[in-house]
Amino acid sequence: MSTASSLSNGFDWNVRVYYEDTDAGGVVFYANYLKFFERARTEWLRALGFQQHEMTATLGAMFVVRQTAVDYLSPARLDDELRITVAVEKLRNASIAFVQEAWRKPSDPSEPGGTGAGETLLATSRIVVVCVDAASFRPRGIPGPLLARLER
Amino acid sequence: MSTASSLSNGFDWNVRVYYEDTDAGGVVFYANYLKFFERARTEWLRALGFQQHEMTATLGAMFVVRQTAVDYLSPARLDDELRITVAVEKLRNASIAFVQEAWRKPSDPSEPGGTGAGETLLATSRIVVVCVDAASFRPRGIPGPLLARLER
Amino acid sequence: MSTASSLSNGFDWNVRVYYEDTDAGGVVFYANYLKFFERARTEWLRALGFQQHEMTATLGAMFVVRQTAVDYLSPARLDDELRITVAVEKLRNASIAFVQEAWRKPSDPSEPGGTGAGETLLATSRIVVVCVDAASFRPRGIPGPLLARLER
Amino acid sequence: MSTASSLSNGFDWNVRVYYEDTDAGGVVFYANYLKFFERARTEWLRALGFQQHEMTATLGAMFVVRQTAVDYLSPARLDDELRITVAVEKLRNASIAFVQEAWRKPSDPSEPGGTGAGETLLATSRIVVVCVDAASFRPRGIPGPLLARLER
Repeated sequence: MSTASSLSNGFDWNVRVYYEDTDAGGVVFYANYLKFFERARTEWLRALGFQQHEMTATLGAMFVVRQTAVDYLSPARLDDELRITVAVEKLRNASIAFVQEAWRKPSDPSEPGGTGAGETLLATSRIVVVCVDAASFRPRGIPGPLLARLER
Repeated sequence: MSTASSLSNGFDWNVRVYYEDTDAGGVVFYANYLKFFERARTEWLRALGFQQHEMTATLGAMFVVRQTAVDYLSPARLDDELRITVAVEKLRNASIAFVQEAWRKPSDPSEPGGTGAGETLLATSRIVVVCVDAASFRPRGIPGPLLARLER
Repeated sequence: MSTASSLSNGFDWNVRVYYEDTDAGGVVFYANYLKFFERARTEWLRALGFQQHEMTATLGAMFVVRQTAVDYLSPARLDDELRITVAVEKLRNASIAFVQEAWRKPSDPSEPGGTGAGETLLATSRIVVVCVDAASFRPRGIPGPLLARLER
Repeated sequence: MSTASSLSNGFDWNVRVYYEDTDAGGVVFYANYLKFFERARTEWLRALGFQQHEMTATLGAMFVVRQTAVDYLSPARLDDELRITVAVEKLRNASIAFVQEAWRKPSDPSEPGGTGAGETLLATSRIVVVCVDAASFRPRGIPGPLLARLER
């Protein structure tokens, strides 16, 4: 688990590649990286003490994705373990811009086929989320306690 | 479009296989047949004059899937066109049991690789949906107008 | 069906929103627009006379997505019908850059709740695909017959 | 981690519910339980010392799902943590029948909204997988080392 100080500018979450994530090209279907990036942002938020269903139930606030830009550099395959990074690039009153990366973790040299080689960068992204009112979908400020936590 | 009389006991919906539907085995990921079956049930309902978002908004009624049983007989591949069938096996006050099949349509003999061979049965299923109150998720009777239409 | 001349710079494909496409926010899950955009590109290619599984089987060539950038402007909901556009922005020897949009079609004024209002732009995108060798995943030129068809 | 002896007849894997797993009904989309069940089977196999991509690369053997039967008892929601069980019901020469369950883990009483109540059974399933030749998709015996490990 990252320390509190590193949370605002560096958080990692590992995901494993299953059949559900792959396509007939034999690699991870590109749209699924958006799922991996979101899992990591969700766990980053949880590590900060905030859960999305609570934010919606208690405060009527919800984050929606406004913009995604992804570069795909190298494919991931079945059984790969990926490390997904989360960094806040820009914090605004009602939105957050993230820079996120997907890295393939080194294979275990003790496993059959494992080489123990270093990490490989698979994909980079910039993702902008906006805080909206859960009923009207209109933009609203990020809830105070979360904003205060992010600005720390 | 099927005729009204055939709707209650025979409806077809065609789906095309895209990369999103496949997995690293080179074939359609088995869980995705549940999506194909649901698309066909949704279009069957629409052909009967009912849309799900309207049922929920107007009547607070929603169908949820209570039980699925699927047998996978033969794999589907990228670019295949499938014919999905819908038949009501048993209609109850608050639930409907469907029998559904997925067939691969004959390839076009004029296309490269097309053989024009007959249809192949890929999967069979029995799927039970229950009508629930959209807020409480408690079972409730199927809305009157739809039930009347189904019993016709 | 679009005419041949419009195909190279304008092609439409309609998709319907099912439960599988939505999330707990009540709207289409943003990653799924990438699926919608790909379905439209696949049908555009098919309308030009090319199917992806054949390109791979016959020529060992495959398109992989290298870059996606999507702006989400307005949410789509269950049962909405979307019109997905395909336009070639830039054709290179081994890659194609597409500009694609997702529009919500006007609801049918004769349906309950239908307003007959005009189309709404939901999402815009720029997507770059690269032609690769299906075995090595190394970039290679777009197969001659397809390139010739695209340059026409 | 389960002990070796418990692996053959009892293995657990936890999964977290993200937006990607839910639908407009506000709950986990039923087809996604098949993904959760497969993640757990994959990790059960990995804990036994076997990875699927290696089985395919080295031995040309692959497991395909032949039959699924799922009963949905209670819905899961965003941020829920589920415990997925794996038990071998019947081991044959070329197939394995699993019984699997999905349980919602007790919420943390120290979290806002956490009640600390016991686990809730959400879904039960019986899933049959068949070992096939990866090229021909014809049934073949489960590879010797894995079969020996399972029979222990």
